[in-house]
Amino acid sequence: MTERMNRQIVLAARPQGRVTTECFAERTTPVPPLGDGEALVQVQWVGIDPTIRGWINERGSYMAPVGIGEVIRSSGVGIVVETKNPDKYPLGQAFTALTGWQEYRVFAAEENPPVTPVGDGVALLDAMNWLGQIGMTAYLGVHDVAQPKPGETFLVSAAGSGVGQLAGQLARQRGARVVGIAGTDAKCEWLVQELGFDACINYRTENVDAALKAQAPQGVDVYFDNVGGALLDTVLRRIATHGRVVLCGDLATYDTDAAPEPLHNLKYVMGRRARMEGFNTLDHWARLGEAHAELSKQFADGSLLRRNDIVVGLEQAPDALVRVFRGDHLGKLVVQVAADAPE
Amino acid sequence: MTERMNRQIVLAARPQGRVTTECFAERTTPVPPLGDGEALVQVQWVGIDPTIRGWINERGSYMAPVGIGEVIRSSGVGIVVETKNPDKYPLGQAFTALTGWQEYRVFAAEENPPVTPVGDGVALLDAMNWLGQIGMTAYLGVHDVAQPKPGETFLVSAAGSGVGQLAGQLARQRGARVVGIAGTDAKCEWLVQELGFDACINYRTENVDAALKAQAPQGVDVYFDNVGGALLDTVLRRIATHGRVVLCGDLATYDTDAAPEPLHNLKYVMGRRARMEGFNTLDHWARLGEAHAELSKQFADGSLLRRNDIVVGLEQAPDALVRVFRGDHLGKLVVQVAADAPE
Repeated sequence: MTERMNRQIVLAARPQGRVTTECFAERTTPVPPLGDGEALVQVQWVGIDPTIRGWINERGSYMAPVGIGEVIRSSGVGIVVETKNPDKYPLGQAFTALTGWQEYRVFAAEENPPVTPVGDGVALLDAMNWLGQIGMTAYLGVHDVAQPKPGETFLVSAAGSGVGQLAGQLARQRGARVVGIAGTDAKCEWLVQELGFDACINYRTENVDAALKAQAPQGVDVYFDNVGGALLDTVLRRIATHGRVVLCGDLATYDTDAAPEPLHNLKYVMGRRARMEGFNTLDHWARLGEAHAELSKQFADGSLLRRNDIVVGLEQAPDALVRVFRGDHLGKLVVQVAADAPE
Repeated sequence: MTERMNRQIVLAARPQGRVTTECFAERTTPVPPLGDGEALVQVQWVGIDPTIRGWINERGSYMAPVGIGEVIRSSGVGIVVETKNPDKYPLGQAFTALTGWQEYRVFAAEENPPVTPVGDGVALLDAMNWLGQIGMTAYLGVHDVAQPKPGETFLVSAAGSGVGQLAGQLARQRGARVVGIAGTDAKCEWLVQELGFDACINYRTENVDAALKAQAPQGVDVYFDNVGGALLDTVLRRIATHGRVVLCGDLATYDTDAAPEPLHNLKYVMGRRARMEGFNTLDHWARLGEAHAELSKQFADGSLLRRNDIVVGLEQAPDALVRVFRGDHLGKLVVQVAADAPE
C-alpha cells in the first residue's frame, strides 16, 4: 500500500484584530499507521463556523486554543476508509466529528467529544449542520426558549446564517411575524422571497432603529440574538412590554480584539418587564431526539428550507472563514474537501 | 368654623445632579371648602420614596413631572376629618393615597389612582408601606419571579431598603442562603444580627467582587437588583450557571443627571445561560390578595420583621429625601406629619 498523504491547514499566526488568510498555512504529512481500535476517516466536508475564530485566539473560548502549527479545529463529516475497529467504525460508514481542516483524520478507539454515525439516507451536509448544532440551536431556541406566539413579532439577527434561516422559518410556523436582520440586499431578498420572512432589514444600509419602528410598531416581542453588541443595544430600545431576548450568539465579538460594546439600554428591559436569557443546547439534551425527528421530517417534505454556500477545495477554507465575517456569502458556508464528496 | 391652613412642601427648583434641600420650599395656603362628593383628609404620614426623585425631574418618569411651585407628590396615609361623601369617605376612616407632602388633602368624588381604605386593626405605616408597594414588590419578586430554591445563594442590593429587608427574609424562609449588599456597617450588622441574613457586604468599604467570591463561591444563583448600574455589572461577573437576575429597581440612576453606567458583562449571562428579567407588581394583580394575606399574617405573628426610620415634622421631608440617597438612614424612612399620628 502506498503511503497516504494528509493535506492540512494549520495555524500559522494568531489573528491581530480581524482574521486574515495570513493566519493559516498548508502542510502535508504522511498518515500514520493505525493502532488497535483505530480507524482512518477521509474527510468529505468541513464547516466554516464562526466559533473557529474563538478557538484560534490565544485564550481559546469554551475549548482549549488551537496551538501554532496545529490543525485548525472544525466540524466536519468523513467516511471510514480503513479500520481496526469494524464494529464501531465500519468501512464506508460516515461520521460527523471535529475532523479539523484536513483530508484525513484518525479516530481513536474512544473519541471525546464522541463522533456520531450518519444515519441511513441522511445527507452528509444535513448531518454535519442542519441536523447538528445548527438545527438543534434553532429548534430548541425557538420552541423551548423564545416560544413566539401567533401574531407576535419575531426578530432574528444574522438571519442568513444557518441558525438564523431555520429560526425564522420555525417562528413563522408558530404564526409569528418574522423580521430578519442581515448584511446584504441579496440575503434579505432571499430570506423574504424564498424562505417566507415577512421583512428583512439590511443593517449596513438602513437605520435599524427607524426600520424597527416601521416593521415592529408595537415593539419586538422576541429577539433571537445571534450577534450581541451594538445591534442588541439598538433592539432593546424597541423591545415590547414582556418581550423576550434569546442570547444565542455574539458574533459581533468574535472577529475582533476589542472589548465587546457595552450595553446602554438595559433600562428598557426593566421598564418593559422584558426578559433576556442565555441559551445553549447543552441544557436541553432530553429534547434533542424530538428536535432531530421533527427537523428530519420537515427537511424531507420540504416544509423547512435550508441553503448551503459551497466552496470547493480545502485550500479555500481560510478565505471562506474570512468571508464569514465579511458576510458576503449566501447560505451556510461549507468546504468540500474530498473531490467526490456526496452532499 | 375657623379656616384651616394647609402647610405644604412644594418644588422650588429642579435638581441639577444630586437633589438638595434647596430644591424645596414651604408654603401655607387655606384649605378650600369641600364640593359635592369630596372629603378632607388630614395627612398623618408621608413616604420618603426614591421614586419621588424621578417625579421632580423635568421629564418625569412613569408619571407626569411635578411642576415648579406644585406640591411634592408622594405616598402617604391620612384620616378623613370632614366629608361630603360619608358612604365612600366616612369620618375617621384612614386611607392610603398619593397624599403629597402636605398636611391636608382634598379627595375628589372619584380619585385616580384610587385611594384605599386602611383595614380594621392594620397599622397606618403597614398600610402605607409594608402591605403596600414595598410588601407587594418583595413578596411577588421573590415568590413569583426570583423563586430561590433551598441552598441557593440569594443576593439582594439596597438590602436595608423596605423591599430589600423583606425580600431577604422571604428568600431565607425558602431555604436560600441570603447575602445583602448595603452602604453602612450599621445596616449590615442589623441585617445579619436582627433579620437573620447570612452575610452582608458593605459596598462602600469592601471590594464587592472579592466579597462575592468569598460569600458565593459557587456563584450567585439569584440577584434581586434594586440598584442597577456598576454594581449590577460587578454581580454579573459572579452570576451562577442558570442564575436569575430580577431587575426590580435602578436606584443608581435616580439621583443623577448622568447617563446610566453601561453594562460590560452581559457575556456572562449568555455563557452561563442566566436570565435577567424586568419586574413590576403591575403584572401580578391576581396575586395581590395572597401577598396581602400572607404578609399580614407574618407581620402579626412576628415571623417577618420590618424597621421604620421615623422623622418627625413635615418640614423635615426634603432633608429626609436627601438622606435616602446618601444612604445613612436605617430602615424605611417615613415622615410623621400629624402631631398625634398613630403608627
